[in-house]
Amino acid sequence: MFFGSDNSSPAHPSILDALVDANKGYTSGYGHEDAMHNVTKKIQDLFEAPNASVYLVATGTAANSLALATITKPWETIFCHKHSHIEEDECGAPEFYTNGAKLTLVDGQDAKISPKSLYEAINFYSNKEVHNIQNGSLSITNVTEFGTVYSLKEIQELTNIAKSNGLKTHLDGARFSNAMVALECTPAQLTWKSDIDVVSFGGTKNGCLAVEAVIFFDPRMAWEFELRRKRGGHLISKHRTLSAQMEGYLKNDLWIKLAKQANSECQNLLAELKKIPDVEILHPTQANLIFALIPEKLHTTLSAKGAKYNFWTNQMLPNDVPKDKIKIRLACSWSTTKSEIDHLLELLSNC
Amino acid sequence: MFFGSDNSSPAHPSILDALVDANKGYTSGYGHEDAMHNVTKKIQDLFEAPNASVYLVATGTAANSLALATITKPWETIFCHKHSHIEEDECGAPEFYTNGAKLTLVDGQDAKISPKSLYEAINFYSNKEVHNIQNGSLSITNVTEFGTVYSLKEIQELTNIAKSNGLKTHLDGARFSNAMVALECTPAQLTWKSDIDVVSFGGTKNGCLAVEAVIFFDPRMAWEFELRRKRGGHLISKHRTLSAQMEGYLKNDLWIKLAKQANSECQNLLAELKKIPDVEILHPTQANLIFALIPEKLHTTLSAKGAKYNFWTNQMLPNDVPKDKIKIRLACSWSTTKSEIDHLLELLSNC
Amino acid sequence: MFFGSDNSSPAHPSILDALVDANKGYTSGYGHEDAMHNVTKKIQDLFEAPNASVYLVATGTAANSLALATITKPWETIFCHKHSHIEEDECGAPEFYTNGAKLTLVDGQDAKISPKSLYEAINFYSNKEVHNIQNGSLSITNVTEFGTVYSLKEIQELTNIAKSNGLKTHLDGARFSNAMVALECTPAQLTWKSDIDVVSFGGTKNGCLAVEAVIFFDPRMAWEFELRRKRGGHLISKHRTLSAQMEGYLKNDLWIKLAKQANSECQNLLAELKKIPDVEILHPTQANLIFALIPEKLHTTLSAKGAKYNFWTNQMLPNDVPKDKIKIRLACSWSTTKSEIDHLLELLSNC
Amino acid sequence: MFFGSDNSSPAHPSILDALVDANKGYTSGYGHEDAMHNVTKKIQDLFEAPNASVYLVATGTAANSLALATITKPWETIFCHKHSHIEEDECGAPEFYTNGAKLTLVDGQDAKISPKSLYEAINFYSNKEVHNIQNGSLSITNVTEFGTVYSLKEIQELTNIAKSNGLKTHLDGARFSNAMVALECTPAQLTWKSDIDVVSFGGTKNGCLAVEAVIFFDPRMAWEFELRRKRGGHLISKHRTLSAQMEGYLKNDLWIKLAKQANSECQNLLAELKKIPDVEILHPTQANLIFALIPEKLHTTLSAKGAKYNFWTNQMLPNDVPKDKIKIRLACSWSTTKSEIDHLLELLSNC
Repeated sequence: MFFGSDNSSPAHPSILDALVDANKGYTSGYGHEDAMHNVTKKIQDLFEAPNASVYLVATGTAANSLALATITKPWETIFCHKHSHIEEDECGAPEFYTNGAKLTLVDGQDAKISPKSLYEAINFYSNKEVHNIQNGSLSITNVTEFGTVYSLKEIQELTNIAKSNGLKTHLDGARFSNAMVALECTPAQLTWKSDIDVVSFGGTKNGCLAVEAVIFFDPRMAWEFELRRKRGGHLISKHRTLSAQMEGYLKNDLWIKLAKQANSECQNLLAELKKIPDVEILHPTQANLIFALIPEKLHTTLSAKGAKYNFWTNQMLPNDVPKDKIKIRLACSWSTTKSEIDHLLELLSNC
Repeated sequence: MFFGSDNSSPAHPSILDALVDANKGYTSGYGHEDAMHNVTKKIQDLFEAPNASVYLVATGTAANSLALATITKPWETIFCHKHSHIEEDECGAPEFYTNGAKLTLVDGQDAKISPKSLYEAINFYSNKEVHNIQNGSLSITNVTEFGTVYSLKEIQELTNIAKSNGLKTHLDGARFSNAMVALECTPAQLTWKSDIDVVSFGGTKNGCLAVEAVIFFDPRMAWEFELRRKRGGHLISKHRTLSAQMEGYLKNDLWIKLAKQANSECQNLLAELKKIPDVEILHPTQANLIFALIPEKLHTTLSAKGAKYNFWTNQMLPNDVPKDKIKIRLACSWSTTKSEIDHLLELLSNC
Repeated sequence: MFFGSDNSSPAHPSILDALVDANKGYTSGYGHEDAMHNVTKKIQDLFEAPNASVYLVATGTAANSLALATITKPWETIFCHKHSHIEEDECGAPEFYTNGAKLTLVDGQDAKISPKSLYEAINFYSNKEVHNIQNGSLSITNVTEFGTVYSLKEIQELTNIAKSNGLKTHLDGARFSNAMVALECTPAQLTWKSDIDVVSFGGTKNGCLAVEAVIFFDPRMAWEFELRRKRGGHLISKHRTLSAQMEGYLKNDLWIKLAKQANSECQNLLAELKKIPDVEILHPTQANLIFALIPEKLHTTLSAKGAKYNFWTNQMLPNDVPKDKIKIRLACSWSTTKSEIDHLLELLSNC
Repeated sequence: MFFGSDNSSPAHPSILDALVDANKGYTSGYGHEDAMHNVTKKIQDLFEAPNASVYLVATGTAANSLALATITKPWETIFCHKHSHIEEDECGAPEFYTNGAKLTLVDGQDAKISPKSLYEAINFYSNKEVHNIQNGSLSITNVTEFGTVYSLKEIQELTNIAKSNGLKTHLDGARFSNAMVALECTPAQLTWKSDIDVVSFGGTKNGCLAVEAVIFFDPRMAWEFELRRKRGGHLISKHRTLSAQMEGYLKNDLWIKLAKQANSECQNLLAELKKIPDVEILHPTQANLIFALIPEKLHTTLSAKGAKYNFWTNQMLPNDVPKDKIKIRLACSWSTTKSEIDHLLELLSNC
């Protein structure tokens, strides 16, 4: 009955099988192994981007920070939602990797940047002068930190504003597959066809052990990224450790199947939760994350019975939240089972 | 017949078994999982250091750079051998993580820092002033980049000079186990009993997939390291990926057995190589790496027959090396077999 | 008829005299000259802080950034008003000097941080974890960027919150003297008696050429600051260039006289402006800066007649500002004359 | 009788006059003042470089570091002499401003880089890989730190090697005028005609208070430099403080006259010193700096009688220097008088 982070799930058995298979005999490392060439080819095909440069790293923070540093100068700013992972959960990694670029926090409902807020933020300094931080890049997160999903049209509205102001664009796709499945679109539509320059394509949260791809649609950025990755200590010597995972992940559409499963279980859970009067759903649930307010008493009972999930007690919440409520996040992953969901619902209905 | 990098070997099956075992059910991540608590306890025991702080990262560059950044201020310098890994093979990662500390290159035979050179380097600026870079830390590599091993006495001579000048001390132990086996000493003797403050304790080159421990003997440095690791993108979410490897590595002395095997095969190979007139051994071979000069013609033949190893052609070598020679490095790893060695020797004797 | 930046004024003749006087014969540099010893002693006396460490630099950006970097770690954040100079006008210098610390923007009327907003910002992450940026320091600007002045009680409310949460405190005193004169308080009251750890004490805007003092009330921070200043290229070799200015500035209370003059002329101007129906004063005018909304037509006329001041056209202003208004800033400096003010008022009354 | 740093001299009266003249009325700042336009035009003319971008900063460390950061990426190295100012006297400022680029120390007699050493250093890593630091830039100092002067031919030999290897080139011209006068060449010959991309053109050591120009011959680098300067806190608000000095410095060839005077007094002193058996001149004296070995006893006497100069006691010197010798540096500046020289020589002849 675990609805904590999707990072707490084990890896899917196929990923481990791929790793065990790859672990035979000598091979070149540092990305020169055959498996990496296969991964690159596979991703170029999937994304309909035959010139894309593809790199693997072990963490989402590394993927985001290295990608952002490659497209943002130290004296520039990254426009992102005020509730984005790069702002709240990476201990300043983007600032470290960019050597001190700023994050300009933009507003918007449900953790989605609103076009109006983005436009105003970009045009805050109407006379671009040496005294101001310069406009650099836009970073969008899809699935967002509140479990919502930008539609293609919403993304394009933002990237249009970005592009017409000379910004580069980054997609934090830690839950890329969950967003894609929710939107029923192609990888290309979700990225370069929507004017995204570079994407962090997540594997870890959706069934891998520790692997994220960084995909540049403009290969001219590639060599700088390679140097930044090495210099950041993120170039793995026995690199098949990463490429084997990614091969396994992409094989036979495993990545899509696992995301479908997670999203679908999440919708099942949501449907039942909505029937429970004590549970107030907080944002449109479009992928594998549910946010809700529940009475503190209910939370105490659930926890006592062993239900696991992230929560924020009242003092961490805005003032307009009633004092006896707490906020919870229920994450479904590829490994969430129907019986776990039933168990949770049973607990809830008995409270 | 592979004598290239010890990084090109596969992981030992026990490491993969440990990973597969660990990959069951939900667990906390980010180092809060039980496996990590076990690793910490095990390392504290092995190193006779009950207060040591232990962290895992996926690469040696990350281990070294994060450790050095924790003990060296941006305006200080790191004294290291001019042929050290942190100088030659990390694309400036120590400079990046320290925010621009300097590496002061120190001389010494066979990639070992000589006490005299260290003393002179430390005392180069006799009046410490604000204009000079300040003395910061000493970084020793054991096994060295030339395959030699510092004796305990040699380490202590260097750390005495360092400590009496207020420097912190770091041991790059990417091949820690090979050095320890060569010296027949304890982990404690090789580190804190020889006045080492922090060690990068390698796993990758000796049978793991991708894991290195960073061990601080002074736990007051721990929290800063944790923040630096997170900020560097090196805190793995599904952290059991690392802790399971390290558990498997330390279990039943696997790490020692594998290093013994590598060192011993290396000595076998060395004994035979010495009998071949065309092969000139370059440094005392004390662990699992042999450096030698061979005629270019011999190299051509070996390569044609499929022998793999690192080499440096003549124009990359000092002027006093005869024009028709090239330098080669033969690395033995846990997976080097007697038959591979026999095959190589056979080729050599037939040339 | 110049009401643009107080940086556009010339230096006061006494400052130049001091510089000419100091420019005789050989002397030690780098702050070892006698003039600097005098400056230190004088500032220690003025601030009733016999142990304070005193340094001079040539720009306010350097003073602020070096001070903030000394009290804020790279993984920490600086709490400051969203309309502060360090956020809006230094092109990311604080981020550069801290190696990527964050600026957390806090709200409050009239460019003054509100205690409630500060409290909430500091407690945004209720569980301090390695994933979050850490709390670092508070930076207050007095006089604020909107020309208002924090009272001693207001400062103490903020520093109390800061100190009880373990933050260091910085005062950006680019217009320190104007604030002090407005508050009729002592330098000590405005700083360490109000729990300020380090102050940027401005000279440039109030009659010097280019000199700002950085004063640490805790001398243990001094050596690190010295290294940061040197490393930032801000240690002037012919240092009497700075110390002579500061000596002249502090001599015979010149700094106080000039600030009084600027504030007083500003009040004279304000009194008259308030009588003009077309002019809407925007913030309490407490020092030497007036902010106002005026009709665009009026602005066109004034500019045509040669009046100089900073302005923001309508598209740079919040949406609730009427479309035909622009925002202006009138700065009075030590060199603003009654005739300039009369001239401006005459223009205004004739429009 | 002062032969310490040329930084200990006062400014030339004409420089102060120019500053006093400029300090009248209101003016734009930040380099937008007329004086700066004049300076740019004047330098473009002097250097026969109508498209050059010209900037002023207050220190040589800032000039060098900002220039080097503009032409060197963080993962690149700067080739410089092991006895260069940027290596020994700037507390790591180049590393700070470049965000951790390396300085590769190159050898050569008399503080001049030898072409052979440069060639070898550039080609140290024959296979450029992601693991190595990348080649970035060459920095030459003229006048060198040992008082010698590169001939035009010597510079061109070095810049040829640099350019044919893709490096950018920087000239540290803290004593540019002394070198130019010694070589009897034009500013253009000493810089862009010898393939120098950017020069730090010193004013401070040759009669100014605190001003150095940075001149880019390729204006495409200009905007990045402007942002770096601002972000480093080196953009002076009352910028006429710098531009007035530089105007005064360049007016009526003052800069050339002062350098001629310093060099010529230095030759006079040298001629007499050579006659004194106890004095052993250490390097060719080609500009305004004399290095010599003298007996410790002589040094004690000279110091007792009030002679001021830089010195290095025996323990700071290489082992082959006799134990009873110390090394001294005698610097002549624009303000060195014949009577000071006579006084010193008299002391020497009486010892």
